[in-house]
Amino acid sequence: MSLIGHFIAGEVVTDAPRTLPVYNPATGESNKTVAVADSATVERAIEVAQAAFPAWRNTPPMKRARVMYRFKELLEANADKIVAMITDEHGKVLDDARGELMRGIEVVEYACGAPELLKGEHSKNAGPAIDAWSEFQPLGVVAGITPFNFPAMVPLWMYPMALVCGNTFILKPSERDPSAPLFIAQLLKEAGLPDGVFNVVNGDKEAVDTLLSDPRIEAVSFVGSTPVAESVYRTACNHGKRCQALGGAKNHAIVMPDADADDAADALMGAAYGSAGERCMAISVVVAVGEDTADTIVEKLKSRIAGLKVGPGTDASHDMGPLITQAHQQRVASYIDRCESEGAELVCDGRQYSVPGHEGGYFLGASLFDRVKPGMSIYEDEIFGPALCVVRVDSLQEGMKLIDDHEYGNGTCIFTRDGEAARFFTDNIKVGMVGVNVPLPVPVASQSFGGWKRSLFGDLSIYGPDAVRFYTRRKTITQRWPSSGLREGAAFSFPSSK
Amino acid sequence: MSLIGHFIAGEVVTDAPRTLPVYNPATGESNKTVAVADSATVERAIEVAQAAFPAWRNTPPMKRARVMYRFKELLEANADKIVAMITDEHGKVLDDARGELMRGIEVVEYACGAPELLKGEHSKNAGPAIDAWSEFQPLGVVAGITPFNFPAMVPLWMYPMALVCGNTFILKPSERDPSAPLFIAQLLKEAGLPDGVFNVVNGDKEAVDTLLSDPRIEAVSFVGSTPVAESVYRTACNHGKRCQALGGAKNHAIVMPDADADDAADALMGAAYGSAGERCMAISVVVAVGEDTADTIVEKLKSRIAGLKVGPGTDASHDMGPLITQAHQQRVASYIDRCESEGAELVCDGRQYSVPGHEGGYFLGASLFDRVKPGMSIYEDEIFGPALCVVRVDSLQEGMKLIDDHEYGNGTCIFTRDGEAARFFTDNIKVGMVGVNVPLPVPVASQSFGGWKRSLFGDLSIYGPDAVRFYTRRKTITQRWPSSGLREGAAFSFPSSK
Amino acid sequence: MSLIGHFIAGEVVTDAPRTLPVYNPATGESNKTVAVADSATVERAIEVAQAAFPAWRNTPPMKRARVMYRFKELLEANADKIVAMITDEHGKVLDDARGELMRGIEVVEYACGAPELLKGEHSKNAGPAIDAWSEFQPLGVVAGITPFNFPAMVPLWMYPMALVCGNTFILKPSERDPSAPLFIAQLLKEAGLPDGVFNVVNGDKEAVDTLLSDPRIEAVSFVGSTPVAESVYRTACNHGKRCQALGGAKNHAIVMPDADADDAADALMGAAYGSAGERCMAISVVVAVGEDTADTIVEKLKSRIAGLKVGPGTDASHDMGPLITQAHQQRVASYIDRCESEGAELVCDGRQYSVPGHEGGYFLGASLFDRVKPGMSIYEDEIFGPALCVVRVDSLQEGMKLIDDHEYGNGTCIFTRDGEAARFFTDNIKVGMVGVNVPLPVPVASQSFGGWKRSLFGDLSIYGPDAVRFYTRRKTITQRWPSSGLREGAAFSFPSSK
Amino acid sequence: MSLIGHFIAGEVVTDAPRTLPVYNPATGESNKTVAVADSATVERAIEVAQAAFPAWRNTPPMKRARVMYRFKELLEANADKIVAMITDEHGKVLDDARGELMRGIEVVEYACGAPELLKGEHSKNAGPAIDAWSEFQPLGVVAGITPFNFPAMVPLWMYPMALVCGNTFILKPSERDPSAPLFIAQLLKEAGLPDGVFNVVNGDKEAVDTLLSDPRIEAVSFVGSTPVAESVYRTACNHGKRCQALGGAKNHAIVMPDADADDAADALMGAAYGSAGERCMAISVVVAVGEDTADTIVEKLKSRIAGLKVGPGTDASHDMGPLITQAHQQRVASYIDRCESEGAELVCDGRQYSVPGHEGGYFLGASLFDRVKPGMSIYEDEIFGPALCVVRVDSLQEGMKLIDDHEYGNGTCIFTRDGEAARFFTDNIKVGMVGVNVPLPVPVASQSFGGWKRSLFGDLSIYGPDAVRFYTRRKTITQRWPSSGLREGAAFSFPSSK
Repeated sequence: MSLIGHFIAGEVVTDAPRTLPVYNPATGESNKTVAVADSATVERAIEVAQAAFPAWRNTPPMKRARVMYRFKELLEANADKIVAMITDEHGKVLDDARGELMRGIEVVEYACGAPELLKGEHSKNAGPAIDAWSEFQPLGVVAGITPFNFPAMVPLWMYPMALVCGNTFILKPSERDPSAPLFIAQLLKEAGLPDGVFNVVNGDKEAVDTLLSDPRIEAVSFVGSTPVAESVYRTACNHGKRCQALGGAKNHAIVMPDADADDAADALMGAAYGSAGERCMAISVVVAVGEDTADTIVEKLKSRIAGLKVGPGTDASHDMGPLITQAHQQRVASYIDRCESEGAELVCDGRQYSVPGHEGGYFLGASLFDRVKPGMSIYEDEIFGPALCVVRVDSLQEGMKLIDDHEYGNGTCIFTRDGEAARFFTDNIKVGMVGVNVPLPVPVASQSFGGWKRSLFGDLSIYGPDAVRFYTRRKTITQRWPSSGLREGAAFSFPSSK
Repeated sequence: MSLIGHFIAGEVVTDAPRTLPVYNPATGESNKTVAVADSATVERAIEVAQAAFPAWRNTPPMKRARVMYRFKELLEANADKIVAMITDEHGKVLDDARGELMRGIEVVEYACGAPELLKGEHSKNAGPAIDAWSEFQPLGVVAGITPFNFPAMVPLWMYPMALVCGNTFILKPSERDPSAPLFIAQLLKEAGLPDGVFNVVNGDKEAVDTLLSDPRIEAVSFVGSTPVAESVYRTACNHGKRCQALGGAKNHAIVMPDADADDAADALMGAAYGSAGERCMAISVVVAVGEDTADTIVEKLKSRIAGLKVGPGTDASHDMGPLITQAHQQRVASYIDRCESEGAELVCDGRQYSVPGHEGGYFLGASLFDRVKPGMSIYEDEIFGPALCVVRVDSLQEGMKLIDDHEYGNGTCIFTRDGEAARFFTDNIKVGMVGVNVPLPVPVASQSFGGWKRSLFGDLSIYGPDAVRFYTRRKTITQRWPSSGLREGAAFSFPSSK
Repeated sequence: MSLIGHFIAGEVVTDAPRTLPVYNPATGESNKTVAVADSATVERAIEVAQAAFPAWRNTPPMKRARVMYRFKELLEANADKIVAMITDEHGKVLDDARGELMRGIEVVEYACGAPELLKGEHSKNAGPAIDAWSEFQPLGVVAGITPFNFPAMVPLWMYPMALVCGNTFILKPSERDPSAPLFIAQLLKEAGLPDGVFNVVNGDKEAVDTLLSDPRIEAVSFVGSTPVAESVYRTACNHGKRCQALGGAKNHAIVMPDADADDAADALMGAAYGSAGERCMAISVVVAVGEDTADTIVEKLKSRIAGLKVGPGTDASHDMGPLITQAHQQRVASYIDRCESEGAELVCDGRQYSVPGHEGGYFLGASLFDRVKPGMSIYEDEIFGPALCVVRVDSLQEGMKLIDDHEYGNGTCIFTRDGEAARFFTDNIKVGMVGVNVPLPVPVASQSFGGWKRSLFGDLSIYGPDAVRFYTRRKTITQRWPSSGLREGAAFSFPSSK
Repeated sequence: MSLIGHFIAGEVVTDAPRTLPVYNPATGESNKTVAVADSATVERAIEVAQAAFPAWRNTPPMKRARVMYRFKELLEANADKIVAMITDEHGKVLDDARGELMRGIEVVEYACGAPELLKGEHSKNAGPAIDAWSEFQPLGVVAGITPFNFPAMVPLWMYPMALVCGNTFILKPSERDPSAPLFIAQLLKEAGLPDGVFNVVNGDKEAVDTLLSDPRIEAVSFVGSTPVAESVYRTACNHGKRCQALGGAKNHAIVMPDADADDAADALMGAAYGSAGERCMAISVVVAVGEDTADTIVEKLKSRIAGLKVGPGTDASHDMGPLITQAHQQRVASYIDRCESEGAELVCDGRQYSVPGHEGGYFLGASLFDRVKPGMSIYEDEIFGPALCVVRVDSLQEGMKLIDDHEYGNGTCIFTRDGEAARFFTDNIKVGMVGVNVPLPVPVASQSFGGWKRSLFGDLSIYGPDAVRFYTRRKTITQRWPSSGLREGAAFSFPSSK
């Protein structure tokens, strides 16, 4: 029984008053535990991060970026190892874990551009012989709190940008799959990051509460479910911190009558069932425009589901692995139990899925519901499992109203060939990340990631250009040098440029 | 007794269940009242603004900007009238009111650049034949709550940028000096702004609470004192709104031994006593480095104070007008009462200042305290009156520690000729707006205005580039067009750019 | 017989050794002459502009921009007058002249954003305690040489941006229609521009040669035909000047089978025959994809041409006015004479067009050629008249090859509903300005205007963001302030950031 | 006798009709030759590069950047080898060669930011339901021609940026020290660059002439002496290519009376004599303000020169190595021969410098001239050797006039503590790269490198943000999607946004 520890001041720390078991969801067994930090441990990490701040703040952006170049190399060199850790504790298939890591590395690459990204705005002759400029200075110690579903990628959405901006960082990853974040922290040290600049504490509510209330934490980035995101956001704001808190999703895909149905069905299979639907960008609702479109797409999905291979993520032939916990598996199944009584049509039932040799694993097959309507729990709630709803509508506008009326506004997409339909949809839909024939429109690293409505609390999105504004504080300097012998009369009026 | 009303849906509205008197602080008399909005009136304004949003949102930025070009012309053409209103209700001298208006117009000018400022970021070939771009879309209905001390300028810090970004706006100006904001609203209509896009409601706590809690308000900009700013920020955040809340200040000016003492003294007179010290960027503490520097600067300030002319703002020969209310006048005087018992030296006493013919006016003369120390109430509190503290220190670092330890972090400046001293100061000081030989380093309109520490709650500063991010919501679109006949296999792994 | 003069040092100058007649092309009569500058006059203008440079260079961008705000107001207030001048000397219909002026004013608006546009790039901590930043400093005296077809707009593409960047300017407008530029110059003075900052010299080859060879001219912007553009570019470069020289065009519009044929035909009528085809962005070739598309579009154009009203531009009911000169009218007619012998089909013949009461005017009706092929003179040459070619192709790729093989690469457009066709076209076509269902894709003022291939000589496009780079010279400053008592050993190796 | 070849289509090519010897300047011996390309060889490289263009152009910027990440790793891993090649053929000391390589790698790092740097400008709603955006598309095949003095760094200033912009490249490095560029080309292939995207041809005038005249070459970057730069620029422009041609320099350092003399002297030693003065950013003139300043600085330089160690670059204890060729050594010596007859005072004479055991090497010691004046050949000409002039002036303004009157305007610096002096100098001096207490103000990679006056021919500087504009062509797309059933009347007037 190995113990997964914290990473503080450049060292792995394993002494812990409490621990929690870490499971392999493909077997339901546990042979690891993770240390759970109490307040004192979190405070020690904060102290260490605060002590490391002044020197790191004064390190030129170019040198901070160079740590990221080396970090990227090490992540690539250790990819197999990281990917195996993710699959072991999260359950997703290896290729999917590799995809996750790649998207994380893309943010590291973007962070390498720090000298460009941190440029200030210089106003020569803002007034006569007066210059003004704005600098983007680091905040100090900042924290990240991340969910189980992307143990490598979501933390990497945060700290590469925070670090190159000159901050020091404390990461509290999910206690469900803590090995990858801990291992990656050690690579960051190997890449040349000074001790104390980046720290990891594992834990639960006590650790989170400490991070949210300690006055030395300047900002918090959070990704998780909407109720927790909202609570984290309020608590952090009330304690005078910056906060960006990303919550849940119910991402709809509109299929227009002119879409290529095979293309759309292929795309939807990956977007709905990939990673067992445990993605904040997963498609969980298909909105088919017209009955014919609906009939066709349901038929095509059904036949593809029949060929879907579910099993342990370590086997490269599998499309989908287990869910994260037994409790979550049961929660997802309970939605399927209810769907018919709510009036939907259960086209494919993934409940009775058993993987020979892995009977203890938390597996579910793919489920597909047709004729779903607003008000049903399978439509309103974020199920976070391999369950896809089909809603039938008569027009694009009707489909868009559904999306706009939903609580969440993370991602959405449209399948069409028509330029006007795509432009009308992307312009007007009340969702933050929009795809045109792209089912998972996760923005590239040089853009920023963020939903609308109750999918994001805060002004600024995560990673990309917004990250520079989130992780820095603007300082504006106005400078005039006195000429020799200059004597000016007092100016009692408010200075204007007139 | 005239009644100052609201401005809703393009019309002045004067029916009001309650009113408050508006005073002329130079005489202490009142011959005007202002309507006080109840919740119903505020809600009507919100409804109107919401109805105006869709058409305004779809108006091209170039056309939205053109309203601002005409607005600028009208503000300039009506400057005398606006300036007279400000002096009548606020008390500041006419030139100072004109300066305020000019700085407000500068933001209108910046807002004219909307087509440039709203450009999105376009990533051609984000992936193979995939393009991605971010748009900055308006939020909807947003609100501004502004203080008495700049009845024209501070509202103009907010709504020109909010409007050109495509939002509709509700302004709740100070009930102390409501005439200028109401008049200016009518100019905006004359400039071609569609009715309902910009609305003004006068009021007190009830109006503010309605704005902060109504779910249709998407964002709130606030300028006022720190306790209120903090409360507004928390309430707005807890109601799921964006908020930027600017609070109080205690701005220190460091005078280095190599500074030109006459220059510095001239600059400090205007910065400390201009507008009777009722500015969030006023200098209220001089930090003299070295005893000689201190002796010299105190002597020079003292002799200049002797020549300071205080009286009604309508007389162009006056340097300083009255305070805003009798209560505030008495509060400022009470600090002077206490200063000697706290251990400071009262060099100039402005308490017994009477203006012949204006005995009812809320006047105070200029006060100067020497040998002030941290812990004294005159040092710790924002007095917001014509009272200047001198603190004596031995080194730049000692002076900087004072500034960094103070609760506020709005503005500061240094007087020196030395490049290294200036760079060390501007780099390290924990203040948002920093002057080098510029006593009131209010950023120009193309930069952004914002303090640090408890002077600003929120991530984004006011006006300038930050205003675009504050008043818009990022939407990122990822687009791929299907090739004819393309058939792709389902991708179950998380998409990466590999 | 009135004499149109130069504008030098803030005054209209009418003494001239030589003059040229200015005609009204709707009547063929002349009652005005224009002064023709010799070298001495041009040199005087240069001297004046050089003398005005230092003070204008040091004027803050915000103040330079304010001249543009007032200039915009004056252009709008005097629009009727300017428009009448254009129609009188150029011939285009009044609405068209008004459109031209509006597009020019848009550049003035963009120039108002100078404080934003001229911001430098500030690299804090480029090295340890070393800051670096780039400033965009004005060049000095720059010149613009402009064509007859847009006497107001094309000059306005140049000097508003040049002026707000801090340069002084000499404009040499077309001698065919010199009244509008001269009148506008006086508005610029009225707007507050200091004398000598902007100057106009009328003239011919002697004036141009002086501008291209005088060492005090730092940069030249030119718009005209390709042979002259190329010559101007080479001469200017060989004299060590910056140069951007915009030349001719042969803009193709592709009509796809899925395009709405009525929409396309309507759009093509304006794009081909508006301003009698005397526009560098006019569509002169329609590329119809498929025989059916071709038959339909030719039929629809033919019927619309039948209803086209040609006559003096002063009559608001006319769609099209005369050509600029009798020589040009005859040159255009000669192409029509030749077309059938070259193998094309003359669908509509505009040669025998007589306007009752205006028999002396240089009128032509609209001509339409079908079955045009590469190699024919009507296809290869820029005719610059109301003559539209139709080429029939079998595929989009075949149409694109035609465009890419043509000497010019100014503008082009595609009519389609299909997202993929549009993206393939805009991505790959070798043309600088591309429209999707937009027949005249003149970039808005916040983008830049420039063709590819032999339509633009130089690196940087005209107006928009490129104008800032063209009219400024980058200066990069690297700054370190010595610490007290610092003693560093000599560094003999090349400094790196290691 | 080994033969250094070309690198074409991913392979080293050694067949050559002609060769030239390559010397070791520390010994004067040669045991290598370099292949000299004839036109046919250059044309083959062009053909290869043109064939590689379409696929490379369509490779997403993120993937192009990834080649640069790997290239950086390989450059670092092979640094010792590259540095040894440079010292062997150029002669500079190893640390200096390492510094050169590091500065080159910094540009590779900047090029890694391609996804950010290539972002287009997106104008949503440029008109009603009309969007417009600009893309920065690659040019095609571009060429670089580089000098002997930085065989690794100067090529790296060019091609990393050209390549990530999507161009293919042909490098013609100096035939004096061709080993490093050839070796580095192989690393680029190893980094994953497709064959043909980057090619190296060695050669002389024939190769250069082919590159300048072949119509398939779209752009040329050149660094060398001013006469050649001017000729290259004219030829390239006359052949319709883009060109940026960087020429010579005579960089002045102003020493103010308040400067720390020891700091300044230390800095000047490295800046004047490092790399034997063979740098375009070397300081070759010290301008001392005031006789006392001059006396002090001359004295301090003299004593430091006495301790200067000159010898083979392979010995780490040496400060300075040999000159590049015997001819150049003699040319530099001839300036020293003449200086006294011209009226200068020869304070240190570096002519008779012999290195035991390296008698055949092209060594010179450090020379120092005092009381130099304009008009002397040592003042006017770029000597490009270890020879430093001191000019004595009475004021900053007098010193600045000297600099402004000089033909070159590459770099300059000022030594002072005074903020006002530095600001006045940096604002007004007619030089492109300006240092404040930084003797070699080579801009960091995120800024751009370029001189003024006859030090740079072309509009755009090298590397940094300007490189993106130089190596791309702007394309602007204006897009409107037709609504169903929309029928619009023909618009004959010029479209405006009114």
